[in-house]
Amino acid sequence: MGKLVTPHGEVETPAFMTVGTHATVKGLMFKDVEEAGAQIVLSNAYHVFLRPGLEVIKKAGGLHKFMGWSKPILTDSGGYQVFSLALFRKMHYRGVEFQSHIDGQKHFLTPEDVVEIQKTLGSDIIMPLDECVHYPCTLEQAKSAMERTFSWAKRSKVALGSSDKQVMFGIVQGATYEALRKEAAQQMIELDFPGYAIGGVSVGESSNLIYNILEIVAGILPEDKPRYAMGIGYPFDIVEAVDRGVDMFDCVIPTRYGRNGTAFTSQGKIIIRNSAYTMDLKPLDEKCGCYTCRNFSRAYLRHLFNAKEMLGLILLSLHNVYFFLDLMRKIRAAIKEDKFSAFKTEFMNNYHTAAGF
Amino acid sequence: MGKLVTPHGEVETPAFMTVGTHATVKGLMFKDVEEAGAQIVLSNAYHVFLRPGLEVIKKAGGLHKFMGWSKPILTDSGGYQVFSLALFRKMHYRGVEFQSHIDGQKHFLTPEDVVEIQKTLGSDIIMPLDECVHYPCTLEQAKSAMERTFSWAKRSKVALGSSDKQVMFGIVQGATYEALRKEAAQQMIELDFPGYAIGGVSVGESSNLIYNILEIVAGILPEDKPRYAMGIGYPFDIVEAVDRGVDMFDCVIPTRYGRNGTAFTSQGKIIIRNSAYTMDLKPLDEKCGCYTCRNFSRAYLRHLFNAKEMLGLILLSLHNVYFFLDLMRKIRAAIKEDKFSAFKTEFMNNYHTAAGF
Repeated sequence: MGKLVTPHGEVETPAFMTVGTHATVKGLMFKDVEEAGAQIVLSNAYHVFLRPGLEVIKKAGGLHKFMGWSKPILTDSGGYQVFSLALFRKMHYRGVEFQSHIDGQKHFLTPEDVVEIQKTLGSDIIMPLDECVHYPCTLEQAKSAMERTFSWAKRSKVALGSSDKQVMFGIVQGATYEALRKEAAQQMIELDFPGYAIGGVSVGESSNLIYNILEIVAGILPEDKPRYAMGIGYPFDIVEAVDRGVDMFDCVIPTRYGRNGTAFTSQGKIIIRNSAYTMDLKPLDEKCGCYTCRNFSRAYLRHLFNAKEMLGLILLSLHNVYFFLDLMRKIRAAIKEDKFSAFKTEFMNNYHTAAGF
Repeated sequence: MGKLVTPHGEVETPAFMTVGTHATVKGLMFKDVEEAGAQIVLSNAYHVFLRPGLEVIKKAGGLHKFMGWSKPILTDSGGYQVFSLALFRKMHYRGVEFQSHIDGQKHFLTPEDVVEIQKTLGSDIIMPLDECVHYPCTLEQAKSAMERTFSWAKRSKVALGSSDKQVMFGIVQGATYEALRKEAAQQMIELDFPGYAIGGVSVGESSNLIYNILEIVAGILPEDKPRYAMGIGYPFDIVEAVDRGVDMFDCVIPTRYGRNGTAFTSQGKIIIRNSAYTMDLKPLDEKCGCYTCRNFSRAYLRHLFNAKEMLGLILLSLHNVYFFLDLMRKIRAAIKEDKFSAFKTEFMNNYHTAAGF
């Protein structure tokens, strides 16, 4: 268990970062996200750069003020979004050329531009531009992306210079190739970042491959600095990753699943539309202390989804965000008491043996 | 200024009832609705009878518990919904036959059934089944509906019997025919209800016709009992109606307009998508104390609507609900200080001369 100290407050690790892609956690007010226990949120430089654009955020005095969140923010560089969302992209030595997924407009961004964007945003933790590859990819593709990521990381570090307001994490790429991952981790360590991210995971490969890469990379990265697995994951992925030394996570799963009517509980997932819940007056999770579980039944939530009422999406999203944040609280408590292994066994047993999962 | 006392708490009048049609105020958590100042909400017996149905609400211990709202509830009888939503309807002496707008299923409900439904819901104020007519309608149609409403009101009163948990309001119909309205008001007064509603207004007629009917009917109804104008209305309608003696209101406008991106402010309406707000860091209303105005700018809210983010709808709905409830607080304060007339003049001047309205 550790602690990240930023100008906007401290973050206890292992930490889950709730995702606020468009400068908003989908469907939730920040006061509720904070009440659920969020100490940090993630936002996407790529998205807010395209819309609403930097001018208004600059005028507002940065992203914290623009979106009304006063605690720490980590911003993703856009490397993954260019890879997954852009209509067209071309990697150059100088930077990346891409077409906006919103209006088709062409953009060219260098690693230096991406640092400058995040300086304007004022995020506490900034990520350098990297190159992410699909799964599966050839060794040559993975090596090329890794080398570009390293070269861009060096330039990004220079571009940030010394700052007492923002820190940058180095991103380890290398796809599923163990040798490349080891090399990439060593390269990043040489650049001496205050934290490291494991990128290019959960891009289509199986869980076992993900866990293997996390174990190898987290095993190389220094223990006294945060190790962040980008875009991970499901509750059991998080528990497995913590077991392998990872201590920062982000994922859209809590809100995305909430909008689709799926709730995470200590007993596994619940599909709230199922007719089994028509008369079920129990909360989503009897062990949960969130606003949704303290006030509403499965029957009521099912009714909201059936009636296509927005509140259903909202309440399930809030519950899921709370569930993930609460999982991290439990993980931290278990680590503190040196009982993580027992916690993991119990969690996995409850979660996987649940009815209907 | 008055006070309604119910088993679930007191309601200061003039009061605006936030509408929770499907047992939810659209897009808002009840804790936020309560924090905005709501002392009572309205729900629709017709809607919750059809979906989720009475069985689960009964099992939950009533509508308050089912939807997680512990303050007073008024439930509409469904007369208006049968009139406006049902795929098919036929009025009989015994009751109303209609086809559900959800699944086309046929139902037959007597006034006694409708009282029984609301007994099960456990709403604090229940409305008897009435017959509402379109505008324009002939004198004969209006007279027939008025007579049926009177006959059903008598039967509903008997069906409720004596209750220390629920009260029933009499509904005055009569369309735009002054003589009918006067007769209907007298009939209801003879039945001696603890409160009276003016129904069949805002069904397509002009504001002047509405104000005229409100003035005539509120002028006849006893001053020491609540007079409720059903489905009214815009902020200026409410101010005009209070001036004519009305002291209860309900309307879907705050949340419906919020979802469509329109905010009510002390300076008139704001269409948040307008490009004029792109760089506007002011709150929706500088005089407003709601969560939205305390934390977010027009530019941020515009961004949320542009990015199709749910939070935009939520924050504008909350602001609008607060605006209506705050308007009522100001009206009550003005009445208390015997300054309602000056308040009305100032409100109307600010509201109507606003740019862009």
